[in-house]
Amino acid sequence: MRAFQLVEWQRPPELREVPVPEPGPGQVLVKVGGAGACHSDLHIMEAPAPAPGEGTRLPFTLGHENAGWVETPGPGVAGFAPGDPVIVYGPWGCGLCANCREGKENYCQRTGGLGGGLGGHDGGMAEYLLVPASRFLIPLGTLDPREAAPLSDAGLTSYHAVKRSLHLLGPGSTAVVIGAGALGQMAIQMLQALSAATTVVTVDTAAGKLEIAKRMGADEALLSGDQAVTRIMDMTRQQGAQLVLDMVGIDPTLRMAAQVARVLGHLTIVGLGGGALPVNFSSPPHECSVASPYWGSIPELMEVITLAQQQKIKMLVEHFPLERVGEAYQFLHDGKIQGRAVITPHP
Amino acid sequence: MRAFQLVEWQRPPELREVPVPEPGPGQVLVKVGGAGACHSDLHIMEAPAPAPGEGTRLPFTLGHENAGWVETPGPGVAGFAPGDPVIVYGPWGCGLCANCREGKENYCQRTGGLGGGLGGHDGGMAEYLLVPASRFLIPLGTLDPREAAPLSDAGLTSYHAVKRSLHLLGPGSTAVVIGAGALGQMAIQMLQALSAATTVVTVDTAAGKLEIAKRMGADEALLSGDQAVTRIMDMTRQQGAQLVLDMVGIDPTLRMAAQVARVLGHLTIVGLGGGALPVNFSSPPHECSVASPYWGSIPELMEVITLAQQQKIKMLVEHFPLERVGEAYQFLHDGKIQGRAVITPHP
Amino acid sequence: MRAFQLVEWQRPPELREVPVPEPGPGQVLVKVGGAGACHSDLHIMEAPAPAPGEGTRLPFTLGHENAGWVETPGPGVAGFAPGDPVIVYGPWGCGLCANCREGKENYCQRTGGLGGGLGGHDGGMAEYLLVPASRFLIPLGTLDPREAAPLSDAGLTSYHAVKRSLHLLGPGSTAVVIGAGALGQMAIQMLQALSAATTVVTVDTAAGKLEIAKRMGADEALLSGDQAVTRIMDMTRQQGAQLVLDMVGIDPTLRMAAQVARVLGHLTIVGLGGGALPVNFSSPPHECSVASPYWGSIPELMEVITLAQQQKIKMLVEHFPLERVGEAYQFLHDGKIQGRAVITPHP
Amino acid sequence: MRAFQLVEWQRPPELREVPVPEPGPGQVLVKVGGAGACHSDLHIMEAPAPAPGEGTRLPFTLGHENAGWVETPGPGVAGFAPGDPVIVYGPWGCGLCANCREGKENYCQRTGGLGGGLGGHDGGMAEYLLVPASRFLIPLGTLDPREAAPLSDAGLTSYHAVKRSLHLLGPGSTAVVIGAGALGQMAIQMLQALSAATTVVTVDTAAGKLEIAKRMGADEALLSGDQAVTRIMDMTRQQGAQLVLDMVGIDPTLRMAAQVARVLGHLTIVGLGGGALPVNFSSPPHECSVASPYWGSIPELMEVITLAQQQKIKMLVEHFPLERVGEAYQFLHDGKIQGRAVITPHP
Repeated sequence: MRAFQLVEWQRPPELREVPVPEPGPGQVLVKVGGAGACHSDLHIMEAPAPAPGEGTRLPFTLGHENAGWVETPGPGVAGFAPGDPVIVYGPWGCGLCANCREGKENYCQRTGGLGGGLGGHDGGMAEYLLVPASRFLIPLGTLDPREAAPLSDAGLTSYHAVKRSLHLLGPGSTAVVIGAGALGQMAIQMLQALSAATTVVTVDTAAGKLEIAKRMGADEALLSGDQAVTRIMDMTRQQGAQLVLDMVGIDPTLRMAAQVARVLGHLTIVGLGGGALPVNFSSPPHECSVASPYWGSIPELMEVITLAQQQKIKMLVEHFPLERVGEAYQFLHDGKIQGRAVITPHP
Repeated sequence: MRAFQLVEWQRPPELREVPVPEPGPGQVLVKVGGAGACHSDLHIMEAPAPAPGEGTRLPFTLGHENAGWVETPGPGVAGFAPGDPVIVYGPWGCGLCANCREGKENYCQRTGGLGGGLGGHDGGMAEYLLVPASRFLIPLGTLDPREAAPLSDAGLTSYHAVKRSLHLLGPGSTAVVIGAGALGQMAIQMLQALSAATTVVTVDTAAGKLEIAKRMGADEALLSGDQAVTRIMDMTRQQGAQLVLDMVGIDPTLRMAAQVARVLGHLTIVGLGGGALPVNFSSPPHECSVASPYWGSIPELMEVITLAQQQKIKMLVEHFPLERVGEAYQFLHDGKIQGRAVITPHP
Repeated sequence: MRAFQLVEWQRPPELREVPVPEPGPGQVLVKVGGAGACHSDLHIMEAPAPAPGEGTRLPFTLGHENAGWVETPGPGVAGFAPGDPVIVYGPWGCGLCANCREGKENYCQRTGGLGGGLGGHDGGMAEYLLVPASRFLIPLGTLDPREAAPLSDAGLTSYHAVKRSLHLLGPGSTAVVIGAGALGQMAIQMLQALSAATTVVTVDTAAGKLEIAKRMGADEALLSGDQAVTRIMDMTRQQGAQLVLDMVGIDPTLRMAAQVARVLGHLTIVGLGGGALPVNFSSPPHECSVASPYWGSIPELMEVITLAQQQKIKMLVEHFPLERVGEAYQFLHDGKIQGRAVITPHP
Repeated sequence: MRAFQLVEWQRPPELREVPVPEPGPGQVLVKVGGAGACHSDLHIMEAPAPAPGEGTRLPFTLGHENAGWVETPGPGVAGFAPGDPVIVYGPWGCGLCANCREGKENYCQRTGGLGGGLGGHDGGMAEYLLVPASRFLIPLGTLDPREAAPLSDAGLTSYHAVKRSLHLLGPGSTAVVIGAGALGQMAIQMLQALSAATTVVTVDTAAGKLEIAKRMGADEALLSGDQAVTRIMDMTRQQGAQLVLDMVGIDPTLRMAAQVARVLGHLTIVGLGGGALPVNFSSPPHECSVASPYWGSIPELMEVITLAQQQKIKMLVEHFPLERVGEAYQFLHDGKIQGRAVITPHP
């Protein structure tokens, strides 16, 4: 089969012919329907060779945002039959540590939640994907794997960031989403679905993205700048927002985030922009909790799928056949993708 | 001024001329805009004389669901000026015990949350109401006290019952509201406002109320009976509902509640119908928490007011001037009130 | 191998020769170190044949409270090697529903948490036990399986009942444990270990058990009766206890539980005594949550093991070789077991 | 009466003769038993004149950590009589905003929780203290105000920092307290009282303080340095601590805090050392929440008093008569105070 593999660090990945893997006991071979192209893949492609360890095996197939159909359940696998449409939970933990036991394999105490496509295992930019345990599969029901794939990362990451702060979002509350790209668009829809009494404000540098954000349900869409800060503080009677999600994570957005957050609020850093927010008694406001989560849990992915089945959330998806995977990444790199580029090895 | 007072136990209350009270330090005299007529007033009118104690003083003015305008702030009162529209928090606690300190004066460890109109103090079925501490007042902003009064009991009681279970109501969840009267209508609107991803089902014996419930946002409205149980179990894949609110509280509704509740769910008894639900290992489902709350907290009343200002909730209100208060209670007793009857001493 | 099996409903179980099972993919064969004899086994022995379904297969081996050593890991099992001391999580779920995904297989939406020894599968009163998935095993570290076995039911059930209410147990709080048998003794130790600022009161009809309870850390041990109620109300300034655990579950203990519980408290029914507590607006106190949980979760069992390793909890255990299993149950039936009887097929 | 007042910014405060204040409606005059000398007073003494606003009135009496006896309740005050021993809740809010309504006047949306002794009002370094509302008083029961005063700041601040993270501190968990001074000593005792199953580690640069910390219940006391980090990581199997409290707040302690914190843990900055912790995806560990709280709530102060009455916590106190107040601050500045210096105007 064909697979899009990183063969050498800091060299462009290649579309190569590799054998179709055989599922062992408890494993499942999945026929890939969709594999999302994520900004973090660009980081991997550009990264220097890491220190030796689990994530350093080369070559490996890219693609950590996958959905498809069960092709072959390995021996002992129950609950899945060939042809079942499934989404693949991405961070693959040990299954045995305290975090894994609660379905938080993103925080596995042994693997750190490193999954397929991230170095330790082959990912989904290929015709078939070997999933190392059936517990990483969630049935998709009526959803099409080619549309649903981005829910496993862009969807789940946004959902987790929203859900952990839902208790703050009562009547009259405000949530600010900085960055109205794929993850921001997800977060806006989820906030509306889960907490209709919250005012959702989004901030971006691109007027076009603000338009999309408004269509997706943002109550207010503001161009970045001091005026955005003033507007948010006025809307909140100078108290700031209960939740600020920074989907960008560069120093200027983090600075803005600290300015518009509230005492006892949450400031959640989702974007990997490379900035850092200094925290002490002076800033952000008192007892505003600052955290940077990684992905989400298996039960949360089940809830994301439910939201999509209820048509409460919808990802903008652009499809590319496997042979055009390099082009898709080029578009992504050039900022030409609205929503998410998804590779479809079996269109 | 005129006041509608209970003069003798088990005798009809009378509209009598009494002096306008003088507010002492920290107290506030409120000009009554609206005073809701509640089913529990009918219970009081019919009740035998209670054992001697705080609630036994006669005569006293009825009316525990009040809003109006500040008439005279007593000495030392800050933050309120004559003419300010306010709603009155009903359960008047000591302000000093651990529950009162968190704004849960409904659970005051000294007074038990007994407030004006319930025996210990005069209530709001009069031209003026003496509120014993300014902390029981919440500004109404743009809301009209004549419309808003029922929010202080029908609104707050429903809100508290919903809010304490919100963490159960994620994507794909189901909430069942048994009884689509005033409190049920409030609960349906609040569930939609606070948790749009929840399917809200209501059950009632009256087709007319089911119609109103659907207009208020119920996703499904079912006539009481075995078929309602079957339908709810089918909708929830035989798991039952995460939240069941019984706004009636008679044995048949409680029995239905236990049948449609879920493992780890909440079954909340709001109605004072006089039934009782037997709880043990066999029923309701495992670890379904059964509780019967009383009213709500001061911060929750602030949130109810915010929801009303956001026009997320709306109470059906029928107005009666003070001289027709007896008639209003007769209509209530005869089941002729849709929503809430509100007495308006200053229409 | 020998196994203690129920061959016919309402007939005494028999010690029979059966084949040693073979572990399939993902399964694990465990050499049984200890299998606890539980009161619910007596119920099973006396029960009439159930309606056809998962739990009705005959014959089956009893014993749902098991620990031992890994004998043979099936194909694909990672993380366990022959000889590893392990405890067996008892309620065996599907692993795929939302509850199982969080480790709450006791509330599996498909199996209802029915595990080995309870009808659907063979249990641990045998030389070897086939565990259907390695996720049901928790490493015991330095603990001896013969001592540790009761932690999987008596320990876990008590722990779950305590842990779900820990947030109520701040400084100055009171917890009442009704029934100072095996589960009550566990609960008392756990309350001391997890919330030292809580006053732990226990109530029993047997003075001897009260003595044991005091040695295990109860701050106060009271003989059942009206005076116990008066004493608890006085200790709590007439407010009642934040948590009441009824380990007995007959009508008189449930009645007492409702009398000594507090507004906003928890009243948890653990005992299967067959009584039922009527709940409505009058009793128990307002918003006291009444629930009857079943067993506990996998992450909680890990915490129980940690507590035992820290020597914060200790179960009184009496050992019986497999050939004396019938005698052990007779002692249990006659009330002659202090703590827990444990069958040791490999002493 | 004599009062220790700041008369001019950046000049030493003076002991001056001022009139005894008269309590208005709802206010209470307190005869000061003890007024703690806090490091933040030293900051105030050295600070430049602030921008005009609530906190800039001069002169004002220092002392924000006060206890004493009710001298004169103002008109309308209920529940307090002359001679009652009371502790004074320090952050004085408006009483009307959403945070104040829950007893979180430290986060008042109008005053920011600025209380007596901090600029807006006179504090307790005087013979009498005017408390602007009786809701700021908590009865001390059997505790002596001269001993209890530091509970209102050193005690409450530590308690809040511990309590907000208690849900993380299950069996086998670890809490690290950086800085074993007055607040650290409080935190150590509170951790032991509230979560006995947690391993409490403290780190300090001074061996003497580590000795005190061990007497107060620290399970492990480590000298600052790389070896402390290594030791904590080894103790936690390289996972880090669930809770890290930094009572110092300079860059080196914050850096250490980030190194020893855990995925999903809490890193709480209590010390006002002037450092700042940079937070992003790389550090601290994923979804570790970083926050800097300010003081605590009124219900929490009630719990602190309960803990002291239960003798679970004990503050080391050194008494100074009012005429030696300048000397007390000099000792504090020179690091010569173990525990807390308390001024006693009425010894």
